[in-house]
Parts: sequence; structure tokens; C-alpha cells
Amino acid sequence: MKIGFIGLGNMGGAIAGHLVAAGHEVTVWNRSADKAAPLVERGARQAATPAEAAEGDIVFTMLANDQAVERVVFAEDGIVRAKTHVSKIHVSMSTISVALAERLTEAHAASGGTFVAAPVFGRPFAAQAGKLAVVAAGPNEALDACEPLFKTFAQHIFRVGDAPRLANVIKLCGNFMIMSAIESLAEAMTLADRSGVDKAALLNVLTSTLFAAPIFKTYGEIILHEEFEPAGFAAPLGLKDMNLVDAAAQSARVPMPFLGVVREHLLATLARHGDAVDWSAIAKIVSDNSGAGR
Amino acid sequence: MKIGFIGLGNMGGAIAGHLVAAGHEVTVWNRSADKAAPLVERGARQAATPAEAAEGDIVFTMLANDQAVERVVFAEDGIVRAKTHVSKIHVSMSTISVALAERLTEAHAASGGTFVAAPVFGRPFAAQAGKLAVVAAGPNEALDACEPLFKTFAQHIFRVGDAPRLANVIKLCGNFMIMSAIESLAEAMTLADRSGVDKAALLNVLTSTLFAAPIFKTYGEIILHEEFEPAGFAAPLGLKDMNLVDAAAQSARVPMPFLGVVREHLLATLARHGDAVDWSAIAKIVSDNSGAGR
Amino acid sequence: MKIGFIGLGNMGGAIAGHLVAAGHEVTVWNRSADKAAPLVERGARQAATPAEAAEGDIVFTMLANDQAVERVVFAEDGIVRAKTHVSKIHVSMSTISVALAERLTEAHAASGGTFVAAPVFGRPFAAQAGKLAVVAAGPNEALDACEPLFKTFAQHIFRVGDAPRLANVIKLCGNFMIMSAIESLAEAMTLADRSGVDKAALLNVLTSTLFAAPIFKTYGEIILHEEFEPAGFAAPLGLKDMNLVDAAAQSARVPMPFLGVVREHLLATLARHGDAVDWSAIAKIVSDNSGAGR
Amino acid sequence: MKIGFIGLGNMGGAIAGHLVAAGHEVTVWNRSADKAAPLVERGARQAATPAEAAEGDIVFTMLANDQAVERVVFAEDGIVRAKTHVSKIHVSMSTISVALAERLTEAHAASGGTFVAAPVFGRPFAAQAGKLAVVAAGPNEALDACEPLFKTFAQHIFRVGDAPRLANVIKLCGNFMIMSAIESLAEAMTLADRSGVDKAALLNVLTSTLFAAPIFKTYGEIILHEEFEPAGFAAPLGLKDMNLVDAAAQSARVPMPFLGVVREHLLATLARHGDAVDWSAIAKIVSDNSGAGR
Repeated sequence: MKIGFIGLGNMGGAIAGHLVAAGHEVTVWNRSADKAAPLVERGARQAATPAEAAEGDIVFTMLANDQAVERVVFAEDGIVRAKTHVSKIHVSMSTISVALAERLTEAHAASGGTFVAAPVFGRPFAAQAGKLAVVAAGPNEALDACEPLFKTFAQHIFRVGDAPRLANVIKLCGNFMIMSAIESLAEAMTLADRSGVDKAALLNVLTSTLFAAPIFKTYGEIILHEEFEPAGFAAPLGLKDMNLVDAAAQSARVPMPFLGVVREHLLATLARHGDAVDWSAIAKIVSDNSGAGR
Repeated sequence: MKIGFIGLGNMGGAIAGHLVAAGHEVTVWNRSADKAAPLVERGARQAATPAEAAEGDIVFTMLANDQAVERVVFAEDGIVRAKTHVSKIHVSMSTISVALAERLTEAHAASGGTFVAAPVFGRPFAAQAGKLAVVAAGPNEALDACEPLFKTFAQHIFRVGDAPRLANVIKLCGNFMIMSAIESLAEAMTLADRSGVDKAALLNVLTSTLFAAPIFKTYGEIILHEEFEPAGFAAPLGLKDMNLVDAAAQSARVPMPFLGVVREHLLATLARHGDAVDWSAIAKIVSDNSGAGR
Repeated sequence: MKIGFIGLGNMGGAIAGHLVAAGHEVTVWNRSADKAAPLVERGARQAATPAEAAEGDIVFTMLANDQAVERVVFAEDGIVRAKTHVSKIHVSMSTISVALAERLTEAHAASGGTFVAAPVFGRPFAAQAGKLAVVAAGPNEALDACEPLFKTFAQHIFRVGDAPRLANVIKLCGNFMIMSAIESLAEAMTLADRSGVDKAALLNVLTSTLFAAPIFKTYGEIILHEEFEPAGFAAPLGLKDMNLVDAAAQSARVPMPFLGVVREHLLATLARHGDAVDWSAIAKIVSDNSGAGR
Repeated sequence: MKIGFIGLGNMGGAIAGHLVAAGHEVTVWNRSADKAAPLVERGARQAATPAEAAEGDIVFTMLANDQAVERVVFAEDGIVRAKTHVSKIHVSMSTISVALAERLTEAHAASGGTFVAAPVFGRPFAAQAGKLAVVAAGPNEALDACEPLFKTFAQHIFRVGDAPRLANVIKLCGNFMIMSAIESLAEAMTLADRSGVDKAALLNVLTSTLFAAPIFKTYGEIILHEEFEPAGFAAPLGLKDMNLVDAAAQSARVPMPFLGVVREHLLATLARHGDAVDWSAIAKIVSDNSGAGR
């Protein structure tokens, strides 16, 4: 299949690699063009503009934020202006706002294309291993067309409805759940530590029983060893995502006090520990506020 | 072995049953004596006082709160006044305050006995199935003596240190983690619901991937179907436990904002929905505050 | 002096009236033109466009939100496009974002004009009575030019610096303080009420002593009598303002947990009690959550 | 009148001084007896036990906490055991729990005496100046008997009902309001400061207009100059009081999220800045979390 791929960061580069490896004809574009080199070596073609990357059957975007998606879609040389056949599908895998998902759905419909939201769960190493989880929403035929492509890089594929925005809501809920898991672990481990309990013992009890889930193991270890750098997912990105959750919550009029706490702790993290730390460094704020290391 | 067992509620009754079934000589006591009948039928002896139940090698307590434990230990006819040989071990499985654990440790030491804290994780059906998790702390020889007994009703046994209080801290941390999991699920599921997403779809995504842990499956289903009655663990007990966490946090000087949120939501649950609901009914407060069912 | 006045709502209409009454040559513009009638009757001239209203020495804007200000400033027929002499001053009295204040400062500088931020404290009846408080920031000469005009409708005039944004920050801080005063009163009065204390007695003690300030008297009475409609300042406007505070807090990286609480309570107010209530109806959420009126 | 006075700290000593100065026959008692010296010099008699101090018509207590009050009332040599005539009135001016107020009401009734709760607002310098505010509750005749005495040291006297506990609820509400005022000022002033605004300018605007109340002036200055030591009211006492509010809120089932925030900030204050600072040092936590002084 002729595929376009826009956004070749840690996540996008790995995913595009799987599509190339599966034998698809992949045309790539990235704002800083040098990121394309490894893929071109492996057989991808490099486009001069987003529009050019969008000339195939399906174009993927995997970008940092709403602004980056808006740029590659709505700019003069953007996707919706690409003169292509009407079956064109745009699959957005980025974590974007629900509002932008709605705008993209309308814009594509108006230009004869189809929008699919397919955000993913998983860190870069899961992307490389082809073990992401995809949450996809859009018209059924479009999802059918995408599914074989998703399988090249995902272990789980969830189809959650016709309206693309549904997938974005679920992705935001998931990221909120992860932040909440981190904060609750941080509070429990700090209480344990300051009460004379070995944090590793607490973590072992939790993750051997009721909390035997990947997220608690992964972040429990990070908090235990205070390995907040280098960031797997940097705190400013975490705050960006929690702000998207906040916008969705305002739109749906849902008060979310746990969200309030994690947003405050992310702000404190940036203020006290800078932008380079992982989003799980909110655990340092919990610890700081208990006087640890005073 | 000659064993005493005090407190024959849903949890205690099931655990004592396993000890009887394993062939131990079990003497039981309960405030309302009729609860002892089923065990007596199966071969247990019924004591007239807590002290009498404590005449064997090891006495277990499984009671509702600090007050109940204080009563069976320190009353005229209580455990520490029992005239028994000095190797006597008292194993407290109740969720009690860290402060009471410290007081019991001292009181037993002063009277020539040994205190072991061994709170458990698991709901009544896990107790019946012999699948509890025990978190035990106390002197090593005492734990060695208890371990074969724990195995009759537990799937996991964690030994977390010499000082009994350590086990109580971990139990409290665990209950706090469960409450936090419930609140975060409630916020995410309410956001999803009010945004047009099928809550079941969100829950499926979460529990198939990052949150594939028992606690999220169990409580996710309860929240999904709003089955808050009959209570598996009633809201007033939840508040009692979160107040114990709060006391431990004050003692250790650890600010815990998630704890603040769940305490407020438990209070609102009691105020709005009464005392009979499950502690997971905090999810109704989240939902109420989003205007659901208005 | 030749003055323009854009935005003739409850606040703007009253302020413009004072300027007319003081003998200035006032040209007015409002999106819905009929609002201009009472002022035209008293001698004001009605402009066809914002640009036309901006042809005098100083133009005031008093509008609902950032979008409305952006429209009258940056549209084809907007203020910054008005072909006028370079001493032109734009005085913005609206509660707008700090970011927009910065953008306006730059835009006016670029077009040879001067931007002054002069948000006001006071409800509509204070505007009519000429008893507003003005917080003004901008270049000194511009403030000197404005001061006699401010005096026609204000009791207090504070000059807080050269950079217009400073006045906007102070205005946002002030509105946050008011919301916090309302929430704290609501919590205290609900606790009193549910504890059997006469709320009026509590309010009397507070406002006769430590809290003898207008804001506590005004809102205490509203909460006491639950007079949340008609709204003096509607809850959606309150939420808009708290979102502006949130944006400023994010920009300055200041975690503000009280802000988190009032934003959540405003959302719950909209979700449960609709858009027509006063922002002080957050007190109903506090009361609802205590089971009052259950 | 024959008066007893128990508790001669900064507050109690000053109040007892006014009673002596007014010509009453005052018998004093304090745990550390040397505190009585200045009053004895001025004509007071020193009692050997609380019971002895309670032999007159009315006995006042002004003590640090519930435990201290329980000791002087219920100990072998305590007030309720004093063999005295049945019209005996005990006036408690301490900030105690609502539950203890209820217990004292019952205990005095059972022993033929009368309990009056009369907590005061005001710092030590207000006590010395005779400018306290008294909030009194109890049987009318008892309040009539007390009123002339209150007038020797109070500027405001509020009678709030028959049941003594009502006065304690109001006192706790008042202290909660003060803490909330401090936190809201701290958040606003930190936002201002980190946004480039002169904090003094913000404070001036606030306290010249809507917040022209003593509490905002007093604490605004303390926060402005970061003068948290020596403590006017030490942080551990603040936490004790907020815990009493929390107990009252639990009893009345009133969720109070602002209370949650200030309790967390008081804990963080103790953990990070020690026990010697004023309760207004919660402002340092707000400031710390914004990265100030990093």
C-alpha cells in the first residue's frame, strides 16, 4: 500500500520503520528533515511537504501537540490541501485535544477524505518492539483498511466507535490514569519511607498482589530509584496532556480533583526541578513536601 | 497447635475455619457469641472470655477497629492479662492504627509475650477460598511459628521486618492505593461517560493493557454497573481506614493530597448516600458532581 | 476630550455614562447597536465600526472576554487599523488574559499607539454610583492623560507600573481572592449549619471582627439567603476568569491548590445548577456535598 | 467576685491581669507555677491545685489543647471534683474540640455546675490591650454572670446560644477562615511575584478595597516580609486547630476541600521548616512549590 508518514520522533520513527519493514511503499516527512535519513536508507521516500507525503492511500501523523498537527494539516502545503483521490484516510496517532479531533473530522469530511483517530499507548521501546496498543475510532471501512497496518506495530487494537473523538477521549483518560497511578504510588511510598518502612518492600507487596500491573511495576521502580532522568516522557509533555484532559473535563463539565492535584504537582515539578525530568518526577514534589532531603 | 481466635466476622470466621480444617485445636471468642456456632459445630471450642481464648500457643485477633482490639487486649478479661506461658504470641490481623500497633508491641513485651502484626489483603470470598495475602512483621522466630498457620488461608505471605508496626503501615498504604485506584477510575469513567464514550470500552482498554490488575477489574465492574450495595467493604470502614492513614501521615509529616480528596469524597458519600454503600460509592460523588442523573 | 467607548454592557454602559456626563465628546460602539440608544439620547455619537469609535484621543474597551477584545482590535474594522494620530491611547478595562495584554501592548506599539490596561473592581451598581476601583498600568504620560477620566467613575485609582500586563495580573489575583473568600465562607457556613449553629450568628461574628470587609458582608448575605439568582456575576464568567488565572499560573509556574478547588466547584455548579446562577453558587456545591436538602 | 483562673500563658496571663486590675479576687493556677509570679505580685492568690482555683464563683480555663483541659477538669485534683457551691460556673476560653465541649457540658451538669464556652479571637497583644472578641455560649443566667468579666478584656462579646458547643464550632470556623485567608493571600501574592508584579502593590490594592479587613492587613504584611519567626501562633498549634475543624467536619459530614489544602500545607511547613514558625508560614510552602529561592 502507498502510505505517508509525518512525524519521525522516537515514536513515529519506530512505527514508520515497521510499516517499511512490512513492505509498504512509505513516503515520510519531518519538520527537521534529517530525521528521515534512517528510514530513507531502509527504502522510504522523503517528501518535500506534508501534502506530498499525503498523496498515497493513507497518511499517518505522529506529532508532539495540537499546533504541530494543525500545521501539517491546514498549512498551504498541508494534508487537507493535497490533491488526491477521495478515499484518502488521515490517521492521527498523536495525543491531541478532543476539540482538534472534532475539527479534523469536519475538515476531512468537507474535503472528501476520512479522519481516523488512533492514538497509542506505549513508550518508545514498545514502539520499537511492535508492542503498542492502538485505540482507534472512525468509520468502519476506514478502520478495516487501517487494521493490517496497525498490526505491524501493535499488540492490541481496540476499535471504540465511529466518531474519531472517542479514541482521543480514551487516550486522555488513560494518560490521566497513569499520572494518578504515579501520584498514588508516590504518596504511599513517601509515607512508607518516612514511617521507617523499606519502600521496596511496599512496592513488592503491591505489585505482587492487587497492583500486579505493568504501570505500577514500571513507575514503582523509577520512583524507588529516583531515576527521573533521562525522561521517558518529559514533565512538560505530561503537563500538556493533563491540560488536554482539563479542557475535555471543562467541556464535559466533569470536576476531577485528582486531575487538579497532578496538574499542581507537574507545575511544581517544572518550577523546582526543570523541564528535563520525567513526568513521574511529581514523586519528588511529594517527597520534597515531606521534608525529605531537607 | 493450640490456637485462639478472636473476632468471627466475615473475614475472621473464614480464617478460623481454615485453621480448624487444618486440624488445629482452635478456641474461639466473639462479642456476639452466636457467631461462634458454625465453628463449634466443626470442632472449635468456645471461650467465655478473650483471656480464655488466649491460653494456647498463639492467639489471633481479627476485629473491626482499634477500640475493639483495645477491648479484647486490655480489658480485665483481656489477652495481656491471660496467665499463660511466656512464648505466647498475639497475631493481630485487623487494620489498626500504627500507634496502637506500637502500644501492643510494648504491652506484650512488658508481659513476656510477643506481638506480631499480620494484616491481610483480600475480600471475604478470598478469605473463604484461602487466597488472602498476609503482610507480617515481628520477631523472626514468632513469624516462623506463624507461617504454617498463615499458609492455611493465604496465597501470599510477605515478611516485612522485625517491628510489627511496619506491617500496619504497609496495610494502610495498600488501602490508600485501593481508594486512589477507585477515585481515579471514577474520574476517568465519568469523563468518558459525559464525553459520549462507552464506559465499558474505556474499562476494557485500561484493564487489557496498562491496568491489567485485579483491583481495576473488580472496581471497574462495580463502578460500571453502579453496584454499590450490598457493600463488600462499607464506606464508614473506608473512612475509618483513611483516617488511620491520615493519622500515620500526620505522625510522619507527609502531606498526601490524594488522601485529602478521597477522605472528602467518603464524607460526601456518607452525607449523600448513607452508611450502607460500598466505599467505592465515592464514584457516585464524582458522578453527582458532573450533574449525572440531575 | 474626544473619547471612544466600545462595549456597552452593564459595566461599560454605566462608565460611558459618566464620561458623557462629565462633558466629554464620546463616540460609542457596541456589537448589538441598540445598547447605544440611551447614551446617544444623552449626547453620545454612535460609530458604525470599532475603528470609527477609535478616532478620538482615547478609546476605552469594556468587553466580555479575550475573543471580544481581539475582534474589536484586530478585525478589518478594528482599533489598530484605525487611521488616527499617533498619540492614540487604548484603555482596556476588561478582565482579559495576561497573554492578550502582552499581545495588545506589542500591537499598539507597532502601530504607533499606546496600550493601557485598567481593569476595574466593582459590581454594576458601583459602576453606576461612580465608585469603582481602577487598577491601571502603562506608560506614565498615558496614565496621566487617563486619570481625569478615571476619576469620573472611580473612587480608587491604583497605578501599578509601566507594563500594562501588571494590572491584568492584579485584577486576576483579585478575582481569585474573591472566589476564595466565597469558598471559605461556604465551607465555614456549611460546617456551622450542619453542626447546629445559626449561620447568621457565625456571619455576624466574622464580619464584625476579623473579616469586617465588604466582600465578606456581600457574599455572606448571598450565601445566607441562598440568593444565587439573578446572578450579579454569572458562574460561567467566574469560570472564565478562573481559567485566566490558571493560564497565568501555568505561565508563571505557580501551583495554586485553592484555585484548583474553586475551578472544580464552578464546574460542578454549571453541571448541577446551570449557567444562570451567580458564581457564589459554588456554595451550593459545598452544601450539596454535605447532604443538605437530600 | 471570687474568680479562679487556670492557664497563664501569653493569652491567659493577660486576661487574668485584666480581671485582677478590675478588682476581682483572683486565684490562679498554672502547670509551671512560676508563671503565676507576676499576677501574685499584683494581688492574685496562687492555688496549689486546679480544684483549689475553682473554689470561687467562676473559674476560667485558658489552655493549649484538649488534653490540658481534660487534665485540669477530670484529674483527682481537678475542677469537677472541687467541693463547691452548685452555682459554680466553668468558663472555657481555650480552642478545644466540639466533642470535649459536649463532654464538659455533661460532666458539669452531672456535678451540679454550669459549663460556658467562651473562646476568644485575638492575638496576645489584643489580649493585653483588652481588645479581644469573645464568642460565648451557655445558659443565659451564666452568660449574664460572665458578661461583666468579659468586658474587662474584650471589645466584642457575642452570645450565640444555650449549648456551649455552638461557641466552639464558631471559634473553629473562625480559625479555619483565617487559615483560608492566609492561603489565598499566599497563592495570590506568589502568582503576582512570579509574574513580575510588586507584591506590596497587590496587597495595597486588596486591602484598600474589597479586602480592607484586619486579617488581610496583618497577614499580608507578614507574608510580604516573610516574617514567620518568632511565631505569633505557631504552626503546630495551627495544625492542632485544623485537626479540630477536621474532627468537627467528620462529625457533621461536611467535606471541606479548602481545609484539606491548609492541613497539607501545615504538614509540609512542619516537615520543611520546623515547629518554630508561625502558622502563616504555609505561605512559604506555596512559594517553595513555585520554585522561588530555588
